Amino acid sequence: MTRVTAEQLAKKQREISVAEFFERNKHILGFGNPTRALVTSVKEGVDNSLDACEEANILPDIVVEIHQGEEDSEYLLVVEDNGPGIVKNQIQHIFGRLLYGSRFHAIRQSRGQQGIGISAVVLYGQLTTGKHAKVISKTAENKPAVLMELAIDTNRNRAEVISSNTVQWEEKTTGTRIEIPIKVDYIRGKRFVYEYLKNTSIVNPHAQIIYREVDGNTHVFERTSDVLPKKSIEIKPHPYGIELGTLIKMAKLSKARKLSSFLTTEFSSMGSRTAELVCREANLDKNLNPKKMTREEFLALHKAFKKVKIMAPPMDCLSPIGETLIKRSLKHETQEISPEFIITVSRPPTAYSGNPFQVEVGLVYGGTLPKDEPVKLMRFANRVPLLYQQGGCAITQAIASIDWRRYGLEQRSGRGIPIGPAIILVHVASTLIPFTSESKEAIADVEEIENEIKLAVRACARKVQRHIHKKVKRKKTRDKFLLITKILPEIAKKSSSMLNKPMPSLDNVITKIMDVIWIDDTIEYEKIERKPAFQTTLYDNPDSSKDRVITKSRITIVNYKQKPQKFNLYAVIPGDAVIGEVKPNPVKTTSRYIKWSLDTIPPGGKKELTFELAGLEKGDFDENELYVEHVNPAYVIGADKWEGE
Amino acid sequence: MTRVTAEQLAKKQREISVAEFFERNKHILGFGNPTRALVTSVKEGVDNSLDACEEANILPDIVVEIHQGEEDSEYLLVVEDNGPGIVKNQIQHIFGRLLYGSRFHAIRQSRGQQGIGISAVVLYGQLTTGKHAKVISKTAENKPAVLMELAIDTNRNRAEVISSNTVQWEEKTTGTRIEIPIKVDYIRGKRFVYEYLKNTSIVNPHAQIIYREVDGNTHVFERTSDVLPKKSIEIKPHPYGIELGTLIKMAKLSKARKLSSFLTTEFSSMGSRTAELVCREANLDKNLNPKKMTREEFLALHKAFKKVKIMAPPMDCLSPIGETLIKRSLKHETQEISPEFIITVSRPPTAYSGNPFQVEVGLVYGGTLPKDEPVKLMRFANRVPLLYQQGGCAITQAIASIDWRRYGLEQRSGRGIPIGPAIILVHVASTLIPFTSESKEAIADVEEIENEIKLAVRACARKVQRHIHKKVKRKKTRDKFLLITKILPEIAKKSSSMLNKPMPSLDNVITKIMDVIWIDDTIEYEKIERKPAFQTTLYDNPDSSKDRVITKSRITIVNYKQKPQKFNLYAVIPGDAVIGEVKPNPVKTTSRYIKWSLDTIPPGGKKELTFELAGLEKGDFDENELYVEHVNPAYVIGADKWEGE
Repeated sequence: MTRVTAEQLAKKQREISVAEFFERNKHILGFGNPTRALVTSVKEGVDNSLDACEEANILPDIVVEIHQGEEDSEYLLVVEDNGPGIVKNQIQHIFGRLLYGSRFHAIRQSRGQQGIGISAVVLYGQLTTGKHAKVISKTAENKPAVLMELAIDTNRNRAEVISSNTVQWEEKTTGTRIEIPIKVDYIRGKRFVYEYLKNTSIVNPHAQIIYREVDGNTHVFERTSDVLPKKSIEIKPHPYGIELGTLIKMAKLSKARKLSSFLTTEFSSMGSRTAELVCREANLDKNLNPKKMTREEFLALHKAFKKVKIMAPPMDCLSPIGETLIKRSLKHETQEISPEFIITVSRPPTAYSGNPFQVEVGLVYGGTLPKDEPVKLMRFANRVPLLYQQGGCAITQAIASIDWRRYGLEQRSGRGIPIGPAIILVHVASTLIPFTSESKEAIADVEEIENEIKLAVRACARKVQRHIHKKVKRKKTRDKFLLITKILPEIAKKSSSMLNKPMPSLDNVITKIMDVIWIDDTIEYEKIERKPAFQTTLYDNPDSSKDRVITKSRITIVNYKQKPQKFNLYAVIPGDAVIGEVKPNPVKTTSRYIKWSLDTIPPGGKKELTFELAGLEKGDFDENELYVEHVNPAYVIGADKWEGE
Repeated sequence: MTRVTAEQLAKKQREISVAEFFERNKHILGFGNPTRALVTSVKEGVDNSLDACEEANILPDIVVEIHQGEEDSEYLLVVEDNGPGIVKNQIQHIFGRLLYGSRFHAIRQSRGQQGIGISAVVLYGQLTTGKHAKVISKTAENKPAVLMELAIDTNRNRAEVISSNTVQWEEKTTGTRIEIPIKVDYIRGKRFVYEYLKNTSIVNPHAQIIYREVDGNTHVFERTSDVLPKKSIEIKPHPYGIELGTLIKMAKLSKARKLSSFLTTEFSSMGSRTAELVCREANLDKNLNPKKMTREEFLALHKAFKKVKIMAPPMDCLSPIGETLIKRSLKHETQEISPEFIITVSRPPTAYSGNPFQVEVGLVYGGTLPKDEPVKLMRFANRVPLLYQQGGCAITQAIASIDWRRYGLEQRSGRGIPIGPAIILVHVASTLIPFTSESKEAIADVEEIENEIKLAVRACARKVQRHIHKKVKRKKTRDKFLLITKILPEIAKKSSSMLNKPMPSLDNVITKIMDVIWIDDTIEYEKIERKPAFQTTLYDNPDSSKDRVITKSRITIVNYKQKPQKFNLYAVIPGDAVIGEVKPNPVKTTSRYIKWSLDTIPPGGKKELTFELAGLEKGDFDENELYVEHVNPAYVIGADKWEGE
């Protein structure tokens, strides 16, 4: 066989255009089959609209329509929003070029990041139907709209503008409407579109989404909150976890002349004091010119980042859903299941490779959920539901790596998705979600993220276990209590009458037999007119359109032990609640708990504690989470051992 | 809250360089965590070397070395090959630009396709260590080598050449050596590197791979075949499944002036007769200028492709491993397990969206494989092992979607990876593997591919079932046979002596009780000197370095029924075997089976068939697969019903 030479092979080497690359590899963008192509197209359109509205501080009104096209499997996808519109000379770039956008270079949480999504839909449309896309955009009430018809020249990765006209679009003040012909499997795909939009609405209660199916059937996902989510703020990169190569590149591009100002101006959490500490740790002169630093000096700087204690990245670049909203959404979604309880856990924000992220978890347990099927997972990233690639997602892997048998769920060989009556919702919010591919359907196995998910899910699982345990323990003690308070007096009565003696007091005996501290609690909701005293800032209220209530919690402690008891009691409260009146005066109140130091309770003695919460809807807080300190928790019914914050 | 206008938002819009995109999204390329980054780096280097050697018709000699770097988690990855080398002016493009390569525009099976892999390793190296990569390349024995040091300017997606020198590299005639510093988790990653290289060696028996670990420990994966795999030929796109948009684009770029010549020159499987049929079906003049055709005309043409019967794409663009080689590799790999049997199935090549592909499956059953653990999957794409993202891969999904309970394996609720003593190997070969992401770790859920995998795996599963069934049935009949041929004569003897009569002939009685056609077979191997009569072409022999044997199969048929029997018998043979002497003369011989039409066999009669196979190693063919036709298969022991080809 003749050898082929390097010269012969060199003739075939060529550059590949990015549009050509994605056209050939359309499965990477989520267009691998005609069913998924439909869902991806809708998703890219809606994500874009939501991002645009939120960036412009507009409550999103989104309409998704699917019309039958000229051919059998050809459809026209329409997505219309009331966002700010797009200025004329940007339309062709946003829709007609891949890797063009506004969010790639900004560090803050948003749905779209890469400037690929919507132009990929245009590309897929022209690939499968040979037709062009239409974009109508209106940027101000007093301006006419622009109607542009465009295609993508894949060899150049540039838009081909077919036509551009001025049109009247009276219904909207501002907004964008896209019409893209696509060849998809509508019959199989439509239920996934519905599911995607429903789940989108769960985590975006501030958006109204109308979905018109081909047959005219219309679903309205109502807005349940008229407050925009906390807007995520653009931040600078955090020194923790930044790659050495990125650091060198940043120094080259920076306008700073001195190392110290490079550090303070280009990084977040880097005040002048911290910058100085870093320079000292790295043994570098703070007046060095960052452009002239050697690789070794950068390496020293890079190492120093990890040795000096630097504040966590500012969390205002993230816009988490919040425990209360997750609980409320799950409650709303699962009302037909009438679950036994719903638990939520929010981890504090942290970072991987300099990218802040935060994990939130919700767990629904019991009710009519099937007991012999795998737990259902609901995955979200930056408020976008993830429908496909569940098996390849870090969320799934984190959940599957937990030994659920310890928490009372069934699981073959201690690995894999557990079996049991539960739904687990996981939301990862980040300035850069590390998706496994551009189709954005699964989160890559970044260790820091997987660990945070595990911590959050395990915390949930422990709460489940504690809840079940507490229930069982309380029931047992209650049974015993009922037994002795009923039977003991009967025996005493009988014995006394037989001996012809007066009946003795049984309190002491009962206490001796019970030998516990009994803590019971009730929760009530009181409807209120909005009172200024409880009015919190607009942003703190995830839902200001609903009736406000005051949540009133009453805790009763009875000492059924033979000795006086003195201990501390903690009541954990949701992070987004506002604490009102607390009785008696607590020794400490934080945003997460109230702490009482209780006076000595004599044997048989009783104590009552109450607190009020505002900023919540009825049912948001429906069970007290109580902990005790400085008392043997084995003798306490109704509270667990305080393990610290 | 103040609205933000479209004009304000427009200011942030920017182009994103492709290198910048992948630098930020390095997890998409398989660099998501430091363990995987090591495996990905080795993989990209080795894949590149194997592709280069095969393209140049050179038997690959590859050395992989990992050295400790200056820092704790810094390592130097070295991959060296004896390939054709790279001409000087191409080195900077191949290693210093993403989306640059020779294989993207060619339709044929190769490991690398996108021109991303190896430059991504360079990018990852500079990102994590701030250091440059070194490439040494020698393109001819009489020429010196070139040593180039380079980095990637991510803003421009171009190489930055740090230095370029001429050096002596005596040991090699031609070859390439790369040295890339990378920051990885070597401790955790090294066993995956070993696994990757071992699996690579399984499906690339023509390559020798030497792996030197950091501590000097060296693994040699020996070459077990000195014949290069059949070289895949570059083909034109196949009309079946091509997208309308691609068709229009091809017409625009074509030099053909007439529709008919456009069809015959730009597509595969499109002769002038087929082209004419297509034009007629589309109602188009075959002399139309393809550049002037309307979208509607292209649409008609596109529809006609699906209505006219067009030959399958030529399969020489694919280079499957082959059933024999898969079986041999699995046998070699599982010898410690001493499995009960190994089964292989090759599907005929087919196409998705105009891309030819072929599925091959191997199944190992029994032996010491654990009975209560999930079946082990081994996934390969274009001869490259897939180690990660198993859950998100079409191979896994296809296997999990089969109801394995029907085939005798345990499986919860008829879905998921089955439990049982089996290993399933799946190889997908294609001119374009639709990976879920650029890290090339999982195949996307393209329906056509998933269906082919299901068909192949189900065929394997049926063979497993049949094997187990046949074994049980044969054992039962054999027990019965032994019983009556031992006990019946004893009874006859006793009865005869008691009655003082001569013992009757029992043949008829035995036949009556047995009531079956008994088919037994044996296989023997005869070592041979290479005989020209059996010498096949170089390509047909996946392994010419080993001793050749002739495989001799002998089939014995005994008619234990009371009536004469006349039927057809089929013996299935491996596709890559060459048929030698067959006795008696068969009525038909194809590459897959031998068919005999048997003369009438009288009751108690016996018939013997033999055939010889060449081109196989000892053990490659170790069990006959026999089928019968024109006889009730319920009465046949040792063969199943012939279901057609």
